[in-house]
This record gives sequence, structure tokens and C-alpha cells, in this order.
Amino acid sequence: MEKIRVGLIGHRFMGKAHTHAYTDIPIYFDPKVEVIKDTLCSNEADVVEYAKRWGYRNCSLDWREVVANKDIDLVDIVAPSTIHAQVAIEAAKQGKHVLCEKPLALNLDDARAMVNAVEQAGVVNMIGFNYRRVPAIVLAKQLIEEGKIGEIYHFRGYYMQDWLVDPKFPLVWRCVKKDAGYGGHGDMGAHIIDLARYLVGDIDDVCCLQRTFIKQRPLPMFMSGLSATGGSDKMGDVDVDDASQMMLRFSGRETMGYVEVSRFHTGHKNKNMIEINGSRGSIIFDLERMNELEYFDRGANARVQGFTNIQVSEAVHPFIENYWPSGHIIGWADTQVNQMYDLICAIRDGIQVHADFRDGLKCQLVLDAAQRSAETLEWTKVAED
Amino acid sequence: MEKIRVGLIGHRFMGKAHTHAYTDIPIYFDPKVEVIKDTLCSNEADVVEYAKRWGYRNCSLDWREVVANKDIDLVDIVAPSTIHAQVAIEAAKQGKHVLCEKPLALNLDDARAMVNAVEQAGVVNMIGFNYRRVPAIVLAKQLIEEGKIGEIYHFRGYYMQDWLVDPKFPLVWRCVKKDAGYGGHGDMGAHIIDLARYLVGDIDDVCCLQRTFIKQRPLPMFMSGLSATGGSDKMGDVDVDDASQMMLRFSGRETMGYVEVSRFHTGHKNKNMIEINGSRGSIIFDLERMNELEYFDRGANARVQGFTNIQVSEAVHPFIENYWPSGHIIGWADTQVNQMYDLICAIRDGIQVHADFRDGLKCQLVLDAAQRSAETLEWTKVAED
Amino acid sequence: MEKIRVGLIGHRFMGKAHTHAYTDIPIYFDPKVEVIKDTLCSNEADVVEYAKRWGYRNCSLDWREVVANKDIDLVDIVAPSTIHAQVAIEAAKQGKHVLCEKPLALNLDDARAMVNAVEQAGVVNMIGFNYRRVPAIVLAKQLIEEGKIGEIYHFRGYYMQDWLVDPKFPLVWRCVKKDAGYGGHGDMGAHIIDLARYLVGDIDDVCCLQRTFIKQRPLPMFMSGLSATGGSDKMGDVDVDDASQMMLRFSGRETMGYVEVSRFHTGHKNKNMIEINGSRGSIIFDLERMNELEYFDRGANARVQGFTNIQVSEAVHPFIENYWPSGHIIGWADTQVNQMYDLICAIRDGIQVHADFRDGLKCQLVLDAAQRSAETLEWTKVAED
Amino acid sequence: MEKIRVGLIGHRFMGKAHTHAYTDIPIYFDPKVEVIKDTLCSNEADVVEYAKRWGYRNCSLDWREVVANKDIDLVDIVAPSTIHAQVAIEAAKQGKHVLCEKPLALNLDDARAMVNAVEQAGVVNMIGFNYRRVPAIVLAKQLIEEGKIGEIYHFRGYYMQDWLVDPKFPLVWRCVKKDAGYGGHGDMGAHIIDLARYLVGDIDDVCCLQRTFIKQRPLPMFMSGLSATGGSDKMGDVDVDDASQMMLRFSGRETMGYVEVSRFHTGHKNKNMIEINGSRGSIIFDLERMNELEYFDRGANARVQGFTNIQVSEAVHPFIENYWPSGHIIGWADTQVNQMYDLICAIRDGIQVHADFRDGLKCQLVLDAAQRSAETLEWTKVAED
Repeated sequence: MEKIRVGLIGHRFMGKAHTHAYTDIPIYFDPKVEVIKDTLCSNEADVVEYAKRWGYRNCSLDWREVVANKDIDLVDIVAPSTIHAQVAIEAAKQGKHVLCEKPLALNLDDARAMVNAVEQAGVVNMIGFNYRRVPAIVLAKQLIEEGKIGEIYHFRGYYMQDWLVDPKFPLVWRCVKKDAGYGGHGDMGAHIIDLARYLVGDIDDVCCLQRTFIKQRPLPMFMSGLSATGGSDKMGDVDVDDASQMMLRFSGRETMGYVEVSRFHTGHKNKNMIEINGSRGSIIFDLERMNELEYFDRGANARVQGFTNIQVSEAVHPFIENYWPSGHIIGWADTQVNQMYDLICAIRDGIQVHADFRDGLKCQLVLDAAQRSAETLEWTKVAED
Repeated sequence: MEKIRVGLIGHRFMGKAHTHAYTDIPIYFDPKVEVIKDTLCSNEADVVEYAKRWGYRNCSLDWREVVANKDIDLVDIVAPSTIHAQVAIEAAKQGKHVLCEKPLALNLDDARAMVNAVEQAGVVNMIGFNYRRVPAIVLAKQLIEEGKIGEIYHFRGYYMQDWLVDPKFPLVWRCVKKDAGYGGHGDMGAHIIDLARYLVGDIDDVCCLQRTFIKQRPLPMFMSGLSATGGSDKMGDVDVDDASQMMLRFSGRETMGYVEVSRFHTGHKNKNMIEINGSRGSIIFDLERMNELEYFDRGANARVQGFTNIQVSEAVHPFIENYWPSGHIIGWADTQVNQMYDLICAIRDGIQVHADFRDGLKCQLVLDAAQRSAETLEWTKVAED
Repeated sequence: MEKIRVGLIGHRFMGKAHTHAYTDIPIYFDPKVEVIKDTLCSNEADVVEYAKRWGYRNCSLDWREVVANKDIDLVDIVAPSTIHAQVAIEAAKQGKHVLCEKPLALNLDDARAMVNAVEQAGVVNMIGFNYRRVPAIVLAKQLIEEGKIGEIYHFRGYYMQDWLVDPKFPLVWRCVKKDAGYGGHGDMGAHIIDLARYLVGDIDDVCCLQRTFIKQRPLPMFMSGLSATGGSDKMGDVDVDDASQMMLRFSGRETMGYVEVSRFHTGHKNKNMIEINGSRGSIIFDLERMNELEYFDRGANARVQGFTNIQVSEAVHPFIENYWPSGHIIGWADTQVNQMYDLICAIRDGIQVHADFRDGLKCQLVLDAAQRSAETLEWTKVAED
Repeated sequence: MEKIRVGLIGHRFMGKAHTHAYTDIPIYFDPKVEVIKDTLCSNEADVVEYAKRWGYRNCSLDWREVVANKDIDLVDIVAPSTIHAQVAIEAAKQGKHVLCEKPLALNLDDARAMVNAVEQAGVVNMIGFNYRRVPAIVLAKQLIEEGKIGEIYHFRGYYMQDWLVDPKFPLVWRCVKKDAGYGGHGDMGAHIIDLARYLVGDIDDVCCLQRTFIKQRPLPMFMSGLSATGGSDKMGDVDVDDASQMMLRFSGRETMGYVEVSRFHTGHKNKNMIEINGSRGSIIFDLERMNELEYFDRGANARVQGFTNIQVSEAVHPFIENYWPSGHIIGWADTQVNQMYDLICAIRDGIQVHADFRDGLKCQLVLDAAQRSAETLEWTKVAED
């Protein structure tokens, strides 16, 4: 059996999520190819321990080593966004297939360079927009493509979290522009914009408003991955957005779009919520109840019309026949399994797979236009990719 | 225009509800007959004030006076259950149409005598099972009759309240057998049993368990209608059930029934909830969201099956075209308006209307069998009416 | 007992709603003053029939007659918006108290003249923002005022309907600028903007996008109030918005606001939904479940934090002790009863009551700024009142 | 590092679930011991393929071989219930720790023998009641133990599925007494009874009603694990219950219990739903939304009381800190990971772990009493273990 050997760069939150995905593929799927967790790489010393615990054959403290390793087929980048570009470009040069977590890069130049690198190298490339592999989202996509929603009038997307409401929460890297590029706008906004593009289409222009509600936060004593502990007496500036809201216009259609992302949506933990209203029907999705899709069919008998709560856990639903009997729900981490399965199959078959780096670039062009709009307070055109 | 003159016996909770209903009929409906709030009657002195405030032409302290009054067409009995039988029987003798609140009577002999009286007199007679006029329940009934639910496998009905959880809540008349006949069993149970009969069919036998969780309560200092204030130092015995649960078997079908009513369902205020599962579909109703009906259609396309939340507030739905535009919900009190409208039309047309006294008797026969079952702990046959 | 005599100008949808309110006041409340349905007025002939059915003492085909009538204390204007200004101004001149349905007027000049008229006359004046009297909204207001929500970060308000999705739906007056002033923007938007002002505060500037998805509709054969039947072969232009979305900035605070109103929100019938996220808590309200309020308390024990579904139907909740026992929900029409009760009390006591005409003007100033923004696609300052 | 070597007997639905659990332990947890998937065993030939795909070192066609293997520390039995007893008893004799799927055995004699075997051998023994490791259920248990629910008045448990509603669904082994012991009663009922015991306490007596709605089904052409394809022309008898309902009384308390399990609950796929109402609060759990717990706190301020929807996905919640950031939900299969982690730790530490074989026996004693009650239609005492 053919083998695909993975080198994973990064070992915190997303490192664990991707490791889980590679590990669980053979439990659920049969890709007819062996996925080998070859090397776990990080510049932090505990990578040794994690490599062992998670079943990697090797570990490395230097990503250049991994990228240069002839035995590696797929370089998977879950390291901080600051190094996405250099790792991905180098990996592509070495002929490796590349998976990169979102956001693609910290700036458009880097993003464009990354797209060029993978496209010139002809390698399979993917960006980690895992919500494209939530079964309910795929079902939504199918309904839209089959015309069940009709002409789309409204798109609304929210990504709601509340972990920054506490003013004592320390200044983690996600609150610092040089490390994160954007605040919630780039982090959570990227997911929503990608879903808008995936489900509706390309975006023409945007009008954005941003706020940083809490301007200074205590510097962290210790920081690792997403988490940080304690807060020192010293304060540092939050120079990214806490919250971002934007109106969108789409290309070639009259759809009215709205996106709101915030880490100040008190009470919401990870509410990625999408609603689409069309001439023939509507759909509502909520990541916190990701095994469900609400669907309104305007064609149903008038007396029994209403939003139908579909439990997207039947064998007829996308990905599900590989999991469990009806009603045995899957978890957030399984969306990553679905993603990795599709990626592995694409590599195996030598075909391209969505969402690719160009999708990542297109998403970032929207975020970038929005960022500029937030400064000028004007409707701003999305640049060409 | 013809007139129907109402004499209302009782002026507390249900007196107010029935008065509201007579008052609002012409706002929503056009029965082509004038409903006149003729006389409000109670043996409590403040009936004078209420008669004036609510727009009654007269008031009376003696129900015999009202029943004997030639000008009264309809005697509506919302007084304590202890006098239901004598008022109703006398009213029927006088040729009055009669509406009586549930439960029909405190015992079966009285209930049978009431049925005989109204049937011999040939007067229009109705029992106040107002939930038969909730638009969502009527829609459920329609779906069942049209075969959309198919063969019914399961019926579950709950009536959940929690106003007795507080041990300091005083010993109101609803906790005393000689005044109330039953506890929650007769009060809330009557509604559920009636809905079981209305939606599914007649009941063969039952197996019941009852509990009185708090055996003694402080005697009330003052009591009026449903409410009571303060609690004296003296305690009195609760000699009715606090909660009642029962399994049911229906006539001529294999449906499995379950009913649970309690005033100890902590957190539920007035949750009258019905679920029916059949070979072709299911329905769920909850009185706290009484403008909605959940409907599952097993015939729908497999990929989009699920429970549909129907907002029963469209002109195509029962009663609604007389109310407001879509989505402008009606309230609990409006179920009484619907009921009174149907009653007034029946009187106008000289026809009978459901639920009639015989429905009240049949319901009580089930409650009675259940009460006996609770004592013997045996499956108990429902007696013939 | 003192009397307050009402002259109601208009007898369609809102005429019925206001009539219901005056009729039901004494069922639920005891304002210690008699409310008399004196005159029902409309220029349509069937006003005679409705006056009789709804219990008005008189009817009139000429509003000037009503406004000039010495016996009338309160002029209630539910006629088309085109005559709001002249009726209200004349009524104020005659010293009548005035209630006017929203929107206050078709243009700002008229709105300002109306405010001047009632303020100079010193009469009690109110605009029909009845959602200020939904018990759940009042509870939300209380929580905000008590500091339970803290500093407000986000306000989102939607008013979702779908009655224009069908392209064959005729060109009713609500789709025509000269009759309606605005489309959904003014009709439903007014409610949301008022709630934004009531719950959060005054609005500084707005950025608005509008769409008219279906540009032409069949002319109606017959039209009355909200409804219209049949569609002729001839088409007419829709010259107002079908949908409107806007971002808002508030005065003196960093709150991010968003409002979206549409008659193309397929599947939603009358979903007036409000969410507010603050530093100490959040609230969510949905008119389709108007007896409920979702409340998140960030101060609760971490293990049991979550959105609490409050059934706003307890005696401790605003207005409710006048209605029914817990869990017996009220309907949309009862919000009007609450409103009229407050108005009647204000007239009785000679005090002012919110929302007054100035609130109506302030709301309209926001709508007007938004309308201009929709044309220029620029953030637009709300004018001073 | 110490090693625990697993021999897994069975490789269909639960074989996959247990394999997933052993595989994922090191992703989420650090048990300080290495779990080795040593041998996968089944008498079906494709076990070879699955052993390879799932990462087992060996495979075997004979469970006796596995049980006798000195290298195996833990024998995990997910084979058909018909061989539970012999495998478990033999494994215990060999000093192996044993995990056995529910139901423990097909009859009480076997179940008792199994308990004796493991207790005499002194091995760690566990029965697969995985719902005890749903974080929301553990939170419920904590709330109950802390007195937050108070005295328990009501327990209701449902297990709702609908995969037998189709009369053409073939006669799978779960519908045949000799293979399955019971119908839904034993399969789903076991889970509910165990949760009743876990959350409330021991059960005294039960009164049960069962139905087999569809008495004959087509014989399957091919059958494997839970699934079966095609239906031959020949029909076979269903000799177990399709649905089972029972009332329960508990030991030493007045709690009223009700359990209903059915494969004819049309529209419900895997709805394991628990509600408990007590003197201080209530909880509601639904497996289809297993990351949530509804909690009503009667001690909360009266104005804001209501059911709180707790997202049980915070680091403060049981098991969750090992998974993902807030709001990233876990799936059904992860309850098995939690269970295996606790089992592995117990083996590592040489301590016992719940639910053990005796819990399995006690559960079966309730099911057995209920089964007898279904035949006699009498309240039936649960036998001593």
C-alpha cells in the first residue's frame, strides 16, 4: 500500500487537532493509502514528549529540516502565522504537498507569493477552512446547488466568542498585530468569509466598522499556543480589533451580506452561525449545534411550512456513513478528519482539492479590503487575486 | 340581530377568562348574533365591583336567581367544582344552555346526573376543555384525521407546574379533596386525558401511581380563587395527589399511552405537552409555546427530514384568519375566545358542540379508574359511560 | 368615575388592534377611569358596521368632525401615514390628547410640525411603539438599567418577514413611496430603531444599504388595510426598499449596532429579534416567542453559566400580575392593551408618557439619515431633533 | 512506561467505537501508561483487514486464544451478547481485567456468574455504560451530589429511536430473543436504567407494558453487526418488544420514575433524554445535544429564573480541559474515550471503577423484573443482587 508521510509544523491547539485527524482517518475511512505521522516539529522543547505521545516516528526542532526531508510527502503548517509564508514556499519548492492553517499569511504580498509557489510547483495545496467539511455545511451547499434555496437575498454570518470580555485576560499573541495580523477579523472572520464565498460566491466590496473595546491588557507571564497564564503588572496595547462588523456586496448578484465577528459576544463560546434566505428556501447553521441544519422549504404545503431541524447524522448525509448509526453525533475535531481524508485522497489521486491557497488568498483580499474600510469608513472594493 | 344572554356563575380566575372571551368575540369574529354579558354571579361581595368593571348589566349573589332568570340563555359555570352539578342540572331543567368548567363534577354520580340532565333537556352543553381550540391542537387533529401521522404508536402527555414545590405554600382548596375532588390528577390530568381522547381515541384501562410529596401545609390566612396569602401557624393535611403518573391502553389499537401531571415539576410553569408518534409522522405540542407545532413527516425526502417547527399563525391555520397577520401570536386567553365563538355559533344554530358533558363524563371515568388504580396499584378498567 | 372618550381614526389592522386594547383594559387593569369607545372614524363605508360590532357609540366618515368634537378626549390615529400630520396637528390644536401610529409622518417637516403642535398644546402625546410594552422587553430594560448587562458592546436588531418573496404578490400601498414613505425600512425599521434607542441610547450616525429585489409587481384589483387581492395584468413599480441593512454608531459609547429589516427573510413571519451583549451579561429577545427572554449572566458560577430562558409570565414580571397564572402566555395584541393602559393612566394623571412624539421624531431622524446613506453609500450623521 | 495490552473481541459497531477510544486516549489524555492495541478478534474473516487498518498488532479468529494469551492485560468484549458470559468468565479466570458491553448477559444466571467470576478473580471489571462519561451527565451528577437539585421528585428517561418503523426493515438479530435477550427494553433500556441508578439510586419495583407493533419482518439476506441488507420473501417472527414503557419506584425515596424506550419513536434518531425535577432545581439532558445541559435553579432571583442552557464545553467541566477550547463540541465517540481513560487509569492504579459488573447485574435485575411485569401486568419487585 502506498504511503503518505506527514511532517507537521506546530504542536499546540491546531497541532493536536491535525494529529487527531491523521490518527482517526483509518478508524472512519479507508483511503487505500497509509498515512504516516512521520515528524512532529516545533521550536519548543516539549515537542519531544508530544511526538512520542501522539505516535510520530520522529521529532524536529527545525522546520527547515522537515521541509528538506526527502521522506516527507505532505508538509502541514499549524505554526504561528508569522512563518506560514516561508515554510509553505520552501515546502512547495521542495515539491511537497502543503496544508496551511488559516489565515494564509500576515499580508497580501506573502499570500500571493504562497499561491504562486504552490501553483508553480504543481503540488496539492489546501488551507484549513475545516468548516467546509462540516456535514451540515456540505448539505447546505448541496441544497443551494440543487436550487432548493433559489436566488439568495440575504447572507448573515457571525462568529461569536467571549473570551476577551474579562479585562484581566492577558495580552496574548492573538491581540498583537505583528503576531496575528488581525484580531477577530482575521481569525474568526476568515472562516465566515470563506463560508460566504463557498456558499454564495465572490465578494465585490465591503463596508467595515471595527472596535477595540479594551485598549490595554496585562502582559502575560507565560504564553503557549492559545493559552496564557497570569497577568503581570505591566500593561501592553491591544492593536488589533476586538470586534468587526461589515456589510458585503457580492459579484453579479443582489445578495445583501453581513458579517460580524467578536470576542465580546458575551455568552457565546464558539458560535459560528450562518443564515441564508433565498427565493425558494432558507438555511440556518450554528457550529455549537453542528450536527443540525435548519431548513425552510417555501415549496412545502402552506399549512405545515416551517423551519425543519435536520439532524445531519444519517447515512444519506455527507461523510456520515463512515461514522456511526443515526443520531450518534460527531464532534468539532471530526471536521478535521473529514478534511484530512479529502486531502489525502487528493494527494493519492494527484488532483487538486478545495479550499486551496487561492481560496485563502481570495478570503484574505476580502479581509484586507475590510480592514482598509474600517480605517476610511468607506465602502471598499475587494482587489483582484 | 338575535341575542344570546349570558349568566356567568363565578368571578375569579376562570370568571375573568370567560368574561374576556365573551368580550372579545366581536373583535375577532362575527357570529351574526349579539352576545350580552347579562349577569355576573358570585356569593362574594366584590362581584358588584367586577360586574361593573367587566361590563355586565347585572350582578347577583345567588346562582338560583340567575338560573331562574327568563332572560338568560346560557348559564356558564366557573364556580367551585362542589356546586357544578346542582347549578348545571337546575340550569338544564330551566332549558338553559350550559357551559361548565372542568372537572365536570366531584364524583361520577354527579357527572352522570349532569349528562342526563342536559341530554334530556336537549340543551347545548359544553365542558371547558379549551385546549381543543388551540390552533396548533386543531392542526394536529387535522393532520391525524388526514392520515399524516398514520397508525399511532405512542401518546405522551404531560401537564407540568411547580407552584407547590415551596413547602410554605398554603393549603389552598386545590389541595383539599372535599373541595377539589382530586389534586393535579383531576385538575391538569383532565386536560391531558381529554386531549388523549380527542387526538387518539377512547381509553380502555390505566395503571396509575400517585404521590403526595408534602403531606401537610400551613392553613391559609386568606384565600380567593386560585390564590391564597400568608400561612398561619396551623397545619392542615394535603389529602389529594401532588403528582400522578399513569400508563394507558386505548380501545381497539395498540397505542401506548403515558400521562404525567404534577405540581412538583420544578421549573415548568404551565407546560401542557403532548407528543404523538405514528407510522407516518409525529407531532409535538407545548402549551408554553402554544403558537407552534412540531411536525415530523416520514414521507419527506430522507436528506431533509426532521421536526418542522410550524408557526401556527397563518391565515391557513385554524381560527387564525380572524386574528392578526402572520407571526403576531395569540395568547392563552384567546383559546377561550375560540371556544366561546364555537359555543355561541352552536347555540345560534341549535346544534351540539364538542367537548360536551358526555366528553366530560368520559374523561372523568378515566380519572376515576386511575384514582382507583393508584390505590390498588393494579391496571384498572375504565367504566362505561 | 372620570371618563376618557376615544375617537379612533382608522379601522383596519391597527384600528382593530387599538379597539381590542381599549376593550380589554378593564378585563386586566383597573385604571380608575372609564374608557369609552366613543367614535370610530374612516372614509370607508363599512366603518358603520365595524363601529357597531366593536361597540363604538358613534361612527363618522370625516376625521375633522371627530377632532372638532368636544366630547372626545383622546384622538387615536391609525389611518394611513399620509394624513398623520394633519390629523395630529389639528387634534392638538383642539386640545385633544393624541396617540399616533408609527411612523410619525412621511417626512421630517411634518414630523417636526407634529412635535411642535403637541408640545405647544401641552397635550399627552404618544407614538405607537407598542414593543416597549412587551413584558420581556421591559424586563430587558430593567436588567440594563440595573447594570446587569454592564457596558453594552453589541446591539443587533432584526425585523424579519417574508410576505413579499412571492413575485405575484400585488403592489400594495406599503410598496409605494408616496403612500408609505419608506418600505420595510420605515415600517419595521422604525420598531427596531426605537428599541435601539429605548434599550441602548441615541444614535450618532449610520451606514445603510438597501435593495429592491423585485422591481415591479402586479397592480392589485382590490386593496384594504394591509391586504390586497388578486393581481391585475398591469404592473407597477416598487419604489421603496424590500430590505434594508445598516450599521449604527451610538452617542457617547462604543456600542456597535446593526439593524436588518426585510420582507424577504424567507421563513420568518414576524421575527423582531434583539440581541444585546455587554460586559456583564447578554439578552436575546424574539417577538415570535415574546413571552420569553434569554439572559446570560456572566456573574453566575462558571460551571452553570449559560443562556437562561426566562418565561416572562410570572407575577413578578412587568404587567403580568394583571393577567393570568404563570405560564399562561399573553399574545401580541396584549402589548397594545399594556400600552393603552399606560396612556390612559398618563391622561388621567396629567403626565407625559413614553414613547412620545419626540421619540417618534428622533426615530425618524435615524431612518432619514439611513435613507440618505443608502443613496450615497456613506456613513451619515443623524440630524438634531 | 508501563503498558496495558488490549484484546478486543468483536469488530463491528462497538468494536469500532472501542478501537477509536483506545486510539484517541493519547491525543487527549496522558494516562502515563501505554495502551497497546494488541489483538483484534472475531470469527469473521474480515477481521484481518480491520486489524490492519485499525492498527492492531495481531488478529485472531478465536476468542479463547486471546483470553489465554499471557500478553493480554485487558479483555474487551464487544461480541454478540450470546457469548458475553463465557468470554468474561474465562478471561477473569485467566486474571485478565475485563470490559464488557451492555447488556451484561442474556439471563440473570449468566450475569450473576459473571459478577462472581470477576469479583473472585479480583480483576478490574467494567460494563460499557458510556453515558456515565458524557460530560453533561457527570455535571448533572455533581449538581445532584452537591444538593443543587434537592430531594428528587421526578425522574423521566426516554430512549427514542425509529429505525423499525419501516415494516420492510429486515428481521435483524436485535429483533430475535435468542440472540438479543430483549428488544429495545434491554438494548436502550439498559442505558436509561443505569442512568436512573447512577443519578437517583436503586430501584424497588416496576410496572411495565410492552408492545411488538410489527409482529413479522422479512428475513435478511445479509447481516453484519447492526446492519442488514435486502429482505427476502420469507418472513420471521419478532419475539422481542418494539417498545417498552415502565413506571418505577425507588428505594428509600418517593421519587416517581418513568422510562420509555422504543424503536418506533418516529422522528427521533438517538434521543436518550433524561429529566429530573427536585425540590431545589431540575435538569434536562438530551443525547442528541450531548454537549448541553439544561439546569433550573429554584434559588435564583425570581425575575430571572428559567432553564439555563449550559454549554458543557468549558475547561471547568468534566473531561473537557483535555479536549478543545470552549464551544468546540465533542462527539458521541468521545464518551468512549473518556470511559477508556478512566478504565485504563483504574487498571494502572489497581482500583475498581464504575460502572462495574455488579452495576450491570443490578441494571439487569431491573430489566428482568420489568420483563416479568410486562407479562403479568403487575407491579413487580426487583430481585436482590
